[in-house]
Amino acid sequence: MPGVSIRGIKVPASPIRKLTPFADDAKSRGMKVYHLNIGQPDLPTPKKALDALRRIDRTTLEYSPSNGIKPLRDTLTGYYAKFGIDVTEKEIIVTSGGSEALLLTFMSCMDPGDEIIMTEPGYANYISFAVSAGVTIKTVTSKIEDGFALPGVDDFERAITDRTKAILICNPNNPTGYLYSKEELYRLRDIVKKHDLFLISDEVYREFRYTDEPYLSALCLPEIEENVIVVDSVSKRYSECGIRVGMIVSHNSTFLGTVMKFCQARLSPPLLGQIVAEASIEGTEEYSRECFEEYLGRRDFFIDGLNKIPGVFSPMPKGAFYTVASLPVEDAEDFCKWCLSEFSYKGEGTPEGFSGETVMMAPAAGFYSTPGLGKNQVRMAYVLKKDDLARALLVLEKALEAYNG
Amino acid sequence: MPGVSIRGIKVPASPIRKLTPFADDAKSRGMKVYHLNIGQPDLPTPKKALDALRRIDRTTLEYSPSNGIKPLRDTLTGYYAKFGIDVTEKEIIVTSGGSEALLLTFMSCMDPGDEIIMTEPGYANYISFAVSAGVTIKTVTSKIEDGFALPGVDDFERAITDRTKAILICNPNNPTGYLYSKEELYRLRDIVKKHDLFLISDEVYREFRYTDEPYLSALCLPEIEENVIVVDSVSKRYSECGIRVGMIVSHNSTFLGTVMKFCQARLSPPLLGQIVAEASIEGTEEYSRECFEEYLGRRDFFIDGLNKIPGVFSPMPKGAFYTVASLPVEDAEDFCKWCLSEFSYKGEGTPEGFSGETVMMAPAAGFYSTPGLGKNQVRMAYVLKKDDLARALLVLEKALEAYNG
Repeated sequence: MPGVSIRGIKVPASPIRKLTPFADDAKSRGMKVYHLNIGQPDLPTPKKALDALRRIDRTTLEYSPSNGIKPLRDTLTGYYAKFGIDVTEKEIIVTSGGSEALLLTFMSCMDPGDEIIMTEPGYANYISFAVSAGVTIKTVTSKIEDGFALPGVDDFERAITDRTKAILICNPNNPTGYLYSKEELYRLRDIVKKHDLFLISDEVYREFRYTDEPYLSALCLPEIEENVIVVDSVSKRYSECGIRVGMIVSHNSTFLGTVMKFCQARLSPPLLGQIVAEASIEGTEEYSRECFEEYLGRRDFFIDGLNKIPGVFSPMPKGAFYTVASLPVEDAEDFCKWCLSEFSYKGEGTPEGFSGETVMMAPAAGFYSTPGLGKNQVRMAYVLKKDDLARALLVLEKALEAYNG
Repeated sequence: MPGVSIRGIKVPASPIRKLTPFADDAKSRGMKVYHLNIGQPDLPTPKKALDALRRIDRTTLEYSPSNGIKPLRDTLTGYYAKFGIDVTEKEIIVTSGGSEALLLTFMSCMDPGDEIIMTEPGYANYISFAVSAGVTIKTVTSKIEDGFALPGVDDFERAITDRTKAILICNPNNPTGYLYSKEELYRLRDIVKKHDLFLISDEVYREFRYTDEPYLSALCLPEIEENVIVVDSVSKRYSECGIRVGMIVSHNSTFLGTVMKFCQARLSPPLLGQIVAEASIEGTEEYSRECFEEYLGRRDFFIDGLNKIPGVFSPMPKGAFYTVASLPVEDAEDFCKWCLSEFSYKGEGTPEGFSGETVMMAPAAGFYSTPGLGKNQVRMAYVLKKDDLARALLVLEKALEAYNG
């Protein structure tokens, strides 16, 4: 048998799905598992979008243009304008989710051996896309005790070499929920300008900001217009992760020209998803407000509850729907596994028909590149209804007591 | 401004879409352009599949599993069984079209610098995916005078080096329409077995075979079970190119395990497309028969018509819906451009409201890697109704007369 690629071996197992076999096993024992591990929103997709799907009257589901259908790109320009982002439809390329947007961006602005700097803890799949593109990731570390704020300029300067081509941020941040301040973004701007790097800004959680400060997209940073690439997606915004519609937005036409060559090779993004996405963007303001309020309520409730558990600490995230919290354990991965394989809580309030309850969390070490970091941390997503979050908090507290007792 | 990647520059412009600006220009002058350049089937998607779409009663369009929804994979096992292909649902991974299936296959079985052997003329996007994966393509040449039959064993042996990891075939073939015989496939099997290579077989045109011989999938070749990877897609089969649903099928679990790591990084294939695809496969036998007969009629009519034009030669393709034909011109790309920018036919039968008629073809040189080959050839797809094909043939004949006269 011929050997498979070493590149494939270098792709890390997803920290989000790594413990899934343990969770499946727990479920097969009749357990109720509260999923705090994955950012799959439980909220409904906008009705308007589902209606658009049911009303499709095409006879042939044909290829869409490689850069996406024009009505969607046109609608997006209006959407971006609301955030002060001034782009034309020609500056938007529609992709198969934010995932493809990231991969094509990496491939189009970097060569194998080039380096990209990202903050850790960071979205684990960035590493997989970097491996795919043959790009080397350098990390600068944000710390839980600073609430995961942007690391200092010195940290970035130290990471820059003559192979550095880009800095990648996620704002608001997955996994930490951190929202960069204007001052921090300008600090990044200065570094990017000084070294003439690309600034890749993953802004898929743009809607989920729990602060009154106006949003500042990387596309609005002055004097680096040609350097900025925004990666975006409708997935989380409209609870439609399954339609696989993301986008690359940039003022850099040379970069976009390169992306288009890769896009033409893969022919087109999903047509049906684009129709759903287009219908999701306009006329859904009330839907978006309701979602926002729901997440805001969940955040306040969940983070407060976490910090009330003895030994648990979570900074207060200002965006997205994740947090990275530290637990009073030495090895969070061991604890997470134990929760799924050995622990079971049964008491007042355990839903009927279940043998017991437990929680599934993503060990945070998988979000760090530096070995040993984040060992006592977990990433949790608050994408459950408040009642379930309350239950998950209680079960987590009981689990910690049992594990440490 | 930071420089974009050299890799991006190496991605060839698509020979299928390269002349699109000229076609757009012709259309803006009121011309009727017959598109023979692109394999976008004009036939309708099965009604059963469109109905499934309209009946979707989900409230959240969530991520599907990274390897695709189980009902689709289950249905596919039944489909493959009809072709004598014995696979389980665990041996199928659903992808975003055949395109993603190719890219993930390249990434999972080859490292940058590894070599893959394919026949030329070949599907142009294979080169783009190879560039993306950092893989080097070596070509062996199939010749129009042999009807584009598989090149001899010696040609393959000469191309094999210690970096060779795979041979890639497309069967039935795009762009030539060639269908490999059992004898040819066994010849390939012997080479693959001798050198322990992967055999990647793109079988997306499996349904379109205009011969009575039974179909032999690469997955049915004995003694190389662990070496074979089939790339597949529902796009052409059910006229649903826009849904982006393809698949990787293999008995090699180590290879599939690596593919899954890349799949988890990109989270999931398109959910809506999978629902459409699932509904397309069973209970559409009559639809498939009608499509087949339509294409068979078109092939006979079109190839016969082509060979009646003085100086034009096309082998009789036994599969797919393409042919590569030679024209009585020195530089087919120049001729194709000229057809769109300078030529216009107006005469009896020119549809009302048009200033004239012309044809768009894909210059075949873009399907060859060896410089200079295929210069007087074009690829044409017979995906138009017979009346339009008749008209396109007439216009092509007139264009050749004018160009050479």
